[in-house]
Amino acid sequence: MNRPLIVINCKVYHEGTGGRADRIARSAQDVADESGVAMAIAPAFTDLHRISHHFNLPVFAQHLDGISPGAHTGYITAEAIRSAGAQGTLLNHSERRITLADLEAAIRAAKEHHLETIVCTNNDATSAAAAALGPGYVAVEPPELIGGKISVSEADPEIIRRSVAAVQRISAGVKVLAGAGIHSGNCVKIALDLGTDGVLLASSVVKAEDPAAVLRDLVSHL
Amino acid sequence: MNRPLIVINCKVYHEGTGGRADRIARSAQDVADESGVAMAIAPAFTDLHRISHHFNLPVFAQHLDGISPGAHTGYITAEAIRSAGAQGTLLNHSERRITLADLEAAIRAAKEHHLETIVCTNNDATSAAAAALGPGYVAVEPPELIGGKISVSEADPEIIRRSVAAVQRISAGVKVLAGAGIHSGNCVKIALDLGTDGVLLASSVVKAEDPAAVLRDLVSHL
Amino acid sequence: MNRPLIVINCKVYHEGTGGRADRIARSAQDVADESGVAMAIAPAFTDLHRISHHFNLPVFAQHLDGISPGAHTGYITAEAIRSAGAQGTLLNHSERRITLADLEAAIRAAKEHHLETIVCTNNDATSAAAAALGPGYVAVEPPELIGGKISVSEADPEIIRRSVAAVQRISAGVKVLAGAGIHSGNCVKIALDLGTDGVLLASSVVKAEDPAAVLRDLVSHL
Amino acid sequence: MNRPLIVINCKVYHEGTGGRADRIARSAQDVADESGVAMAIAPAFTDLHRISHHFNLPVFAQHLDGISPGAHTGYITAEAIRSAGAQGTLLNHSERRITLADLEAAIRAAKEHHLETIVCTNNDATSAAAAALGPGYVAVEPPELIGGKISVSEADPEIIRRSVAAVQRISAGVKVLAGAGIHSGNCVKIALDLGTDGVLLASSVVKAEDPAAVLRDLVSHL
Repeated sequence: MNRPLIVINCKVYHEGTGGRADRIARSAQDVADESGVAMAIAPAFTDLHRISHHFNLPVFAQHLDGISPGAHTGYITAEAIRSAGAQGTLLNHSERRITLADLEAAIRAAKEHHLETIVCTNNDATSAAAAALGPGYVAVEPPELIGGKISVSEADPEIIRRSVAAVQRISAGVKVLAGAGIHSGNCVKIALDLGTDGVLLASSVVKAEDPAAVLRDLVSHL
Repeated sequence: MNRPLIVINCKVYHEGTGGRADRIARSAQDVADESGVAMAIAPAFTDLHRISHHFNLPVFAQHLDGISPGAHTGYITAEAIRSAGAQGTLLNHSERRITLADLEAAIRAAKEHHLETIVCTNNDATSAAAAALGPGYVAVEPPELIGGKISVSEADPEIIRRSVAAVQRISAGVKVLAGAGIHSGNCVKIALDLGTDGVLLASSVVKAEDPAAVLRDLVSHL
Repeated sequence: MNRPLIVINCKVYHEGTGGRADRIARSAQDVADESGVAMAIAPAFTDLHRISHHFNLPVFAQHLDGISPGAHTGYITAEAIRSAGAQGTLLNHSERRITLADLEAAIRAAKEHHLETIVCTNNDATSAAAAALGPGYVAVEPPELIGGKISVSEADPEIIRRSVAAVQRISAGVKVLAGAGIHSGNCVKIALDLGTDGVLLASSVVKAEDPAAVLRDLVSHL
Repeated sequence: MNRPLIVINCKVYHEGTGGRADRIARSAQDVADESGVAMAIAPAFTDLHRISHHFNLPVFAQHLDGISPGAHTGYITAEAIRSAGAQGTLLNHSERRITLADLEAAIRAAKEHHLETIVCTNNDATSAAAAALGPGYVAVEPPELIGGKISVSEADPEIIRRSVAAVQRISAGVKVLAGAGIHSGNCVKIALDLGTDGVLLASSVVKAEDPAAVLRDLVSHL
């Protein structure tokens, strides 16, 4: 099995934007070094360059538009996030859904720029469809659990199991993450036991008083 | 093999809206009766009820929102198009792309209301992804050929072949239509020879001086 | 002062879609006849034609795309709703917001087809902006009160007063409706006393056991 | 009269993204210093922080979402662009239209963070509506001329004149820029003579072999 991956989505939480993102990045870097668990951070677009250059941690964008460079005011190109230092991107997060055609174009643009892709989905049917597009990861996140205190591992392990099976049926090369409400080492362990390669989380770390302590708990059962 | 299907999308062309849609519907009904080729029409939402009740022809909506009845001003529910007499719906047309999550929800809502689904896609990767959602049909239409005078059959037969293969790899139960620029019996024949179950077309019939003559030509090689 | 106007938005409530919309339309027609208060109904797109032709009541669409007839699968043209019998349209409802450019184009397209326009807004600043586009009506509806049991008249009379003032500052020819939670004759009376020309409402009538009784209460203080 | 303002929109042109944006910024800074004409640059989100900190030039974002910090993956908050060093933002560019409600919220969020706002519009009616929302500037840009070789000053001076008049009728405090195809000192002079306070441009500078030379020509008639 691969080394599990923990991806921290800063969203645009006050606690994870601008200089405050540094505390999250530093905690992730420290706990990754201590534990040997792979960690990545997805800060706001405006923080990508700074975080990429000041920390030794894979940095992801939160979204990407699958368009070529050109006359697209206010859009996010693979070229732009790559030149800012990103190693990958989230795509189709429940807070930033994109069309099927745009998703396919974004995965293609990411590959051309050697960017890893994590496609967020809401159930096993969309997980299968996303897998057919050949991303690196599919991250299944039941929208009703995102940001809550009960994790997908606890509330709906079956959706994880079904998504892992659905993705493997489509393509053995696509890995699966679980997301929504992940907040403890037990949540992470359940997700891995169900066949995932890691977790995608946000508020439990980003809004924590002590992000490093939460991260240490998250890796404690691995 | 199944009987081939020809689906006529009226879009919101002047020539296919309101009372003028009747001429298209009547031509399709007549040529379907004469030729034994299955035909369906997708008129504007506002014409669904009238066309469904005045013609003996399967009627499709052009789009569907995969939402439950409720507080959604200006949206299109499966319940609404079903009660207007529709037997199915186009989804994700290149002029009306929807998110992956909305597409999955729309297919689910359509099934609950016993509506057939035709998901439009732009290449073989999105065709595979759409097939993973279990619609009745995937209609592959290279956007750059839509509305033009050169058909996908002539300009890009490989995209049809690859889409048929991609869809069959995902699910044997999903049928494939070819679309974009289809205007003659030869276009239709090529599409069927490449493994599709029919075609999706619009301007060549809807904007024709004599829609019945065009339809007779379309079925002439079958 | 003009005769007040009550506009009933059926949304896509189960109770207001398909044949069930007839009960709402008949109640509105009856109470309009009894009371002399002007009433209009905005049913689903698929019901526009039927309701327009079976009832003696102004019928509005719930939304309009400000585009010309053409290759726009799944869109709603002024031509289409006009030929279905609509006399006007809601625009920019909080459940169906559109861009400023699209709103201006929609108002223009509506005028070309002699359709009345009611632009929904969320506060006095957007009411002023909407008024600058020259619609027939601006309907101010605080989104947080829509669908609730406390009306804008009770909860936030100041937003009505400020919107009336803001609209009049921009253009004396634009009338104002109040919406959100309107459910009683008292709500209507307050709205009119604050300078509006009527109300826009939905659930209190559409989901009522006896829509006619609710409508009779709504006009009881006029 | 105020000192005229020239705003350079880098869009996501290859020539204006990442390290290549530095050449544009340096040229703008040099020509602003030489000429005394005010210049500002709007680079990609990912370049905001770097350009703000390395050049002595007002930096604008290309877009802003009028939301509060929180769970909004992939969005752009006023807080984020402010902390990256931006002094303002473009809003509602023709390539990135937003709803009327979002535009009003974005202007409000920008003001709370002491950010200047430039709202792009497509004609005099939308210019008037935008002015009613109280931005710093309205930039009128006929979409069909954007990116072309013929400027709005040459092709459609009347739209500039009408927009200046429309904006002044609504609010004397809102300034007007002209945009679309601006490429020479003559274009700028015409725009100012018609009552604007400056211009918004992109390709003529960003894609130029020698951006400083183009900028010197742009200010040559002032």
